[in-house]
Amino acid sequence: MKRIGVLLAGCGYLDGAEVHEAVLTLLALDEAGVEAVCMAPDIPQRKVVNHLTGGEMDESRNVLIESARIARGQIQAISDVDPDTLDALILPGGFGAALNLSDFALSGANQQIDATVAHMVTTVHEAGKPIGAICIAPAIIAKLIPGVKLTIGNDSGTANALESMGATHQDCVVTEIIVDEEKRVVSSPAYMLGPWVKDVAAGIRSCVKAVVAQIG
Amino acid sequence: MKRIGVLLAGCGYLDGAEVHEAVLTLLALDEAGVEAVCMAPDIPQRKVVNHLTGGEMDESRNVLIESARIARGQIQAISDVDPDTLDALILPGGFGAALNLSDFALSGANQQIDATVAHMVTTVHEAGKPIGAICIAPAIIAKLIPGVKLTIGNDSGTANALESMGATHQDCVVTEIIVDEEKRVVSSPAYMLGPWVKDVAAGIRSCVKAVVAQIG
Repeated sequence: MKRIGVLLAGCGYLDGAEVHEAVLTLLALDEAGVEAVCMAPDIPQRKVVNHLTGGEMDESRNVLIESARIARGQIQAISDVDPDTLDALILPGGFGAALNLSDFALSGANQQIDATVAHMVTTVHEAGKPIGAICIAPAIIAKLIPGVKLTIGNDSGTANALESMGATHQDCVVTEIIVDEEKRVVSSPAYMLGPWVKDVAAGIRSCVKAVVAQIG
Repeated sequence: MKRIGVLLAGCGYLDGAEVHEAVLTLLALDEAGVEAVCMAPDIPQRKVVNHLTGGEMDESRNVLIESARIARGQIQAISDVDPDTLDALILPGGFGAALNLSDFALSGANQQIDATVAHMVTTVHEAGKPIGAICIAPAIIAKLIPGVKLTIGNDSGTANALESMGATHQDCVVTEIIVDEEKRVVSSPAYMLGPWVKDVAAGIRSCVKAVVAQIG
């Protein structure tokens, strides 16, 4: 059975992984008959947000421990996952991708990417394996795979930031994907556009299918 | 557009709502063309569990605030939702249903049910509207709707507890549902059986379709 890494960033769209996107990724992988290998960095979240009010909470939470809520405990620290054992990698979105996996939400094109995340993405990519990036996660890929073609939907400010890192951005609707055949990167806008679960699920299902189809 | 209440119990299967079940319920409702009205009690969780280790954490979290992670902030306190504005009600599972919405996990058939939850369930039921209950959530329905026919899968201990409250339990596989046509209650085992997302999604989709079909 093919093994596809799923890189999570917490549990909640304002400070971690977008919950719907993560679950819909796991659903599409299961429907495609491949194994999901969930992972997350064992680091503190950059912040904790009250998802009812949008305000910051005076709390500390750990990215791996909170990600485990989405994975039902079936998760490893990213540093314990050997990229050579994976056939592909998928990054769901949520602000956690831009706050915990990187600091793109704070620094834009000048972002720093978590070293374990950078190692995982570049090792998988350099082995010629496909990568899927959902919602805001393509911002990480734009920095690590220069010249990649991808989408974050149609937000011009974010698209410009991606292009300033050397990527080529293409506008895309929520139910569709952009595929860079040469670099084997598939992206879909998900909740960069929304509006809600059904359309996001359609785009993610297409993204997962395209990633699985690219496995050599 | 029909409006169906979705009663959440936190965010994480060991201390709150089962995340996959909740998201798959929202997906099925969106696919069915009905509006999800997410709600949760504004109360402290009975406990906070580290989903990586399974151990209890020395923390306090609020059921409504954590549920908002699943609902992307589109959620109300259950006490602010008028049952008369709903066409139906669905309860996803997770230990939160048996720890926060009730204390079934601690007291079994002698459980106490949160007063706002009991009011919501009984008001919707007495108005002749359908109710869907997923995973362990049928334990709550068994107490509030005496004589109801439902399923929690095939765990005999739990099934016996439900029958001791006056319910009729029927074994059921994960991809199927049990329908009490007279009492308009639909149930599906979900992660009482598992094993993983695809099969749970099939059962929940059937459950949601049957609930929507029962709306008068």
